[in-house]
Amino acid sequence: MSPKDAPTQMNGAESVVRSLHGAGVDVCFANPGTSEMQFVDALDRTGLMRCVLGLFEGVTTGAADGYARMARKPAVTLLHLAPGLANAGANMHNARKARAPMVNLVGDHAIRHRGYDAPLTADVEGAAAPFSDWVRTAQDAGSFAADAMDALGAAMSRPNKVATLIAPADIGWDPGGRLAAPPPAPVYAPLEEGAVARAAGMLGPDCVILASGTVLETPEAVAQLQGIAAATGATLRAPTSNRRFDRGAGRAPIQRVPYPINMALEALAPFRRAILIEAVPPVAFFAYPGRPSLLLPEGCEVHTLTGRDGDGPAAVAALADRLGAAPLVQDTPLPPAPQAGPITAPAIAAAIANALPEGAIVVDESISGGRDIWGATLGAAPHSWIGLTGGAIGDGIPMALGASVACPDRPVVALQADGSAMYTIQGLWSQAREGCNVTTVVFANRTYEILKTELAAVGANPGPSALNMLDLDRPGLDFVSLARGMGVPGQRVEDVAELMRVLRAAVAEPGPYVIEAAM
Amino acid sequence: MSPKDAPTQMNGAESVVRSLHGAGVDVCFANPGTSEMQFVDALDRTGLMRCVLGLFEGVTTGAADGYARMARKPAVTLLHLAPGLANAGANMHNARKARAPMVNLVGDHAIRHRGYDAPLTADVEGAAAPFSDWVRTAQDAGSFAADAMDALGAAMSRPNKVATLIAPADIGWDPGGRLAAPPPAPVYAPLEEGAVARAAGMLGPDCVILASGTVLETPEAVAQLQGIAAATGATLRAPTSNRRFDRGAGRAPIQRVPYPINMALEALAPFRRAILIEAVPPVAFFAYPGRPSLLLPEGCEVHTLTGRDGDGPAAVAALADRLGAAPLVQDTPLPPAPQAGPITAPAIAAAIANALPEGAIVVDESISGGRDIWGATLGAAPHSWIGLTGGAIGDGIPMALGASVACPDRPVVALQADGSAMYTIQGLWSQAREGCNVTTVVFANRTYEILKTELAAVGANPGPSALNMLDLDRPGLDFVSLARGMGVPGQRVEDVAELMRVLRAAVAEPGPYVIEAAM
Repeated sequence: MSPKDAPTQMNGAESVVRSLHGAGVDVCFANPGTSEMQFVDALDRTGLMRCVLGLFEGVTTGAADGYARMARKPAVTLLHLAPGLANAGANMHNARKARAPMVNLVGDHAIRHRGYDAPLTADVEGAAAPFSDWVRTAQDAGSFAADAMDALGAAMSRPNKVATLIAPADIGWDPGGRLAAPPPAPVYAPLEEGAVARAAGMLGPDCVILASGTVLETPEAVAQLQGIAAATGATLRAPTSNRRFDRGAGRAPIQRVPYPINMALEALAPFRRAILIEAVPPVAFFAYPGRPSLLLPEGCEVHTLTGRDGDGPAAVAALADRLGAAPLVQDTPLPPAPQAGPITAPAIAAAIANALPEGAIVVDESISGGRDIWGATLGAAPHSWIGLTGGAIGDGIPMALGASVACPDRPVVALQADGSAMYTIQGLWSQAREGCNVTTVVFANRTYEILKTELAAVGANPGPSALNMLDLDRPGLDFVSLARGMGVPGQRVEDVAELMRVLRAAVAEPGPYVIEAAM
Repeated sequence: MSPKDAPTQMNGAESVVRSLHGAGVDVCFANPGTSEMQFVDALDRTGLMRCVLGLFEGVTTGAADGYARMARKPAVTLLHLAPGLANAGANMHNARKARAPMVNLVGDHAIRHRGYDAPLTADVEGAAAPFSDWVRTAQDAGSFAADAMDALGAAMSRPNKVATLIAPADIGWDPGGRLAAPPPAPVYAPLEEGAVARAAGMLGPDCVILASGTVLETPEAVAQLQGIAAATGATLRAPTSNRRFDRGAGRAPIQRVPYPINMALEALAPFRRAILIEAVPPVAFFAYPGRPSLLLPEGCEVHTLTGRDGDGPAAVAALADRLGAAPLVQDTPLPPAPQAGPITAPAIAAAIANALPEGAIVVDESISGGRDIWGATLGAAPHSWIGLTGGAIGDGIPMALGASVACPDRPVVALQADGSAMYTIQGLWSQAREGCNVTTVVFANRTYEILKTELAAVGANPGPSALNMLDLDRPGLDFVSLARGMGVPGQRVEDVAELMRVLRAAVAEPGPYVIEAAM
């Protein structure tokens, strides 16, 4: 036993905080309760981490999701027992589907207290499991930091994972904590022999390349793929949902598989071969009567060049090298800046594309109202783009908070549907407290527009009771007042040229701002 | 097979809606998504239920909790897949700990779609289990309504339960639905032979009677227990958390076991015998170093007169009859109406006690700021009192919504801590939409005061990083703006006489109102 491994008077909580910090974790998104007071104390005494309070657990895990996507490493979250973990679950789900690394520390009752049916007693591991790739309950103070390093190692492994470590209160307060060494560096799955040659042999006009994961965060890799596509007649697509894109002017554009089932099927219908790079065969968001679940045509030959555990950019480079294909960056023109007029979907897209500053982070939870923005911003100033991955609405405002904490010098522009905004509206307060330069554009159409489309898709014609569950008027939500209530300034705009002007001003100023765009 | 049992062209969703309505369920608290569109359609076409939209799932289940406590029957909730169910979990937990009846209908992917890793795929049964007493996944349209009746039967059984029925989308849209008959009436566990005699023999000054459940909702039973206590020298207490009290002037008062561990231990220290009526041996909220988990003194003789599955009022009547004890109602005086001055804990308690109208429903999530209100309102106009049971904050605003839907003619006064309010603040919008007469008094101390107490209890002295996680200033929350943003009028008051005046005016007017009480 080395001196470092010797039991100490340090309590379990402090050993975890110090070990996580030693492994590079320096931000904690927290919503603590009584069972986490020893962590609050350890974070306070050591001063090693920036602690960001969320007023609701979904803010905490959503912020951790946005942080991880931009920092490319996990923050730690601090959560409270099974109900708090449940509140955190939807954005753990989104992070998990994004393959974003996340480490959750969840306090539980002291071990001796768990057998009693106390008011807050519930199955914490059970609440963690549906939304975690890795779950463990710490057993004693001496091994607690090692557990935390295992959680961190799991989170950083390929593909990244959501790891949840449950911490009975006494494990935190007991002495005998031991510091633990950082986990080993993650290892990529190697390229399989012959995988590149097989891919090269499949390319042609009947072939679609589906690339995701780190490929989309590597503009050089996307340019190489576009070069390969141009040289062979193949088509390049990203899946509908992805962790992050680095894109914009001077970077090769890439289109996504559309969300609506019929458009998705149509987009993929021409292909008899598919090459997957850090991707899996695409699946419909939902099943519909008379429509398939898998989106590639029946009989399509599918080849995984490298899986989600692989190094996509290296695989792409090997394929380009074999083909002798040069990278290709086709510039996409910016749409003209919109003239004064109502805020329609195409107009708001043009306004955002023209107002986006270089280095911005776009957080996309615009759902139906933002459908034209993706295409319009292909030629916008270079930016990162992170969006909803798991379909659990309410990730946008928190992700914007986390992205700003990760990259404080980059302006964040959050494209936010109104219905979705209300799931985690509390995140605006944390943006104000942390002084985040986040400009949130609320797409205020006052309806769950996407659900009206889905209701039509099941053949129904909504009457008053259905509309009562799909419309958000009566009363209309006033996002300027909501923002003011949490210390965030804002204004409502009804003209698209005014929207562009206000957006430009807001991103140029520090601190958060809310623009309610009346659609 | 009777004609009623014959398969029909009715789809599964419609068979469930019609069968639930046939069994007396006529309110649906809904937060639907794509997989529930057939329910939205069935609710719309049949017009059998009042559908109340929540902007967040925690509002939906919290409203169902408040509704069930006041209506004494379940509403149905409509929820969306595993992440939506997770969002609903904290208030399912509170309802479960309250033994409030609840039936959740949760859409899942169509059965054939569940094997694919679609964006919203996650383990729905797994997400339900920690917060449900009963979980089932429907298997086909023909048995779907029978499953719903089983869920309703489970929810209404003694003690009441949280039942979650998972509904794959195709089970809802498939034809062949069969109506199902209402579940059998719930059965109370009978009094065990000799249980009353044993209780009678234990009574005396060293005996505490702990009564909960339906006893506290039956003023006659509490009066009989007070009579028994007075006749024998025993002490009557309610547990710390309970589903509902019917109390106030003309009804016998009852004190609760205090929340703080030291006060709880002190309150129960004198007793060598305990009689439990619809109650279990009391457990500390949390474990603390050097403190026991069980609150009754070691060696205390415990006798369950009747359990949580029994008929407490009948057991009390039998005990009173055996003893020949007459009911006793000691009137507790109202505190004098407060004079102008700052809003302290005792002053706000006096203001609320004096302003409370007859027949009001008090919803208590005031946490630390409302500690004096319980005692002050013992002599207030007769009212019902429902409070947080499971310790998962964020039940107050939704419960007030649900209580008002259950009892539209009774004014609701919601006592709401500021930190807790932010978990489900979205419920104000539903209050406005439904025109609920709910007056919410926000105890704006701008801190998680209770956590400061808990941090002190683990021996820590908070520094800036700890205070950053416990204080809610920077920026201060402005609840008047937040309410306005959701269509609810309100005002901030800093003087307690003004508070009383505004509260009286607000409860006398229809519709919701928010009073931010600066403490």
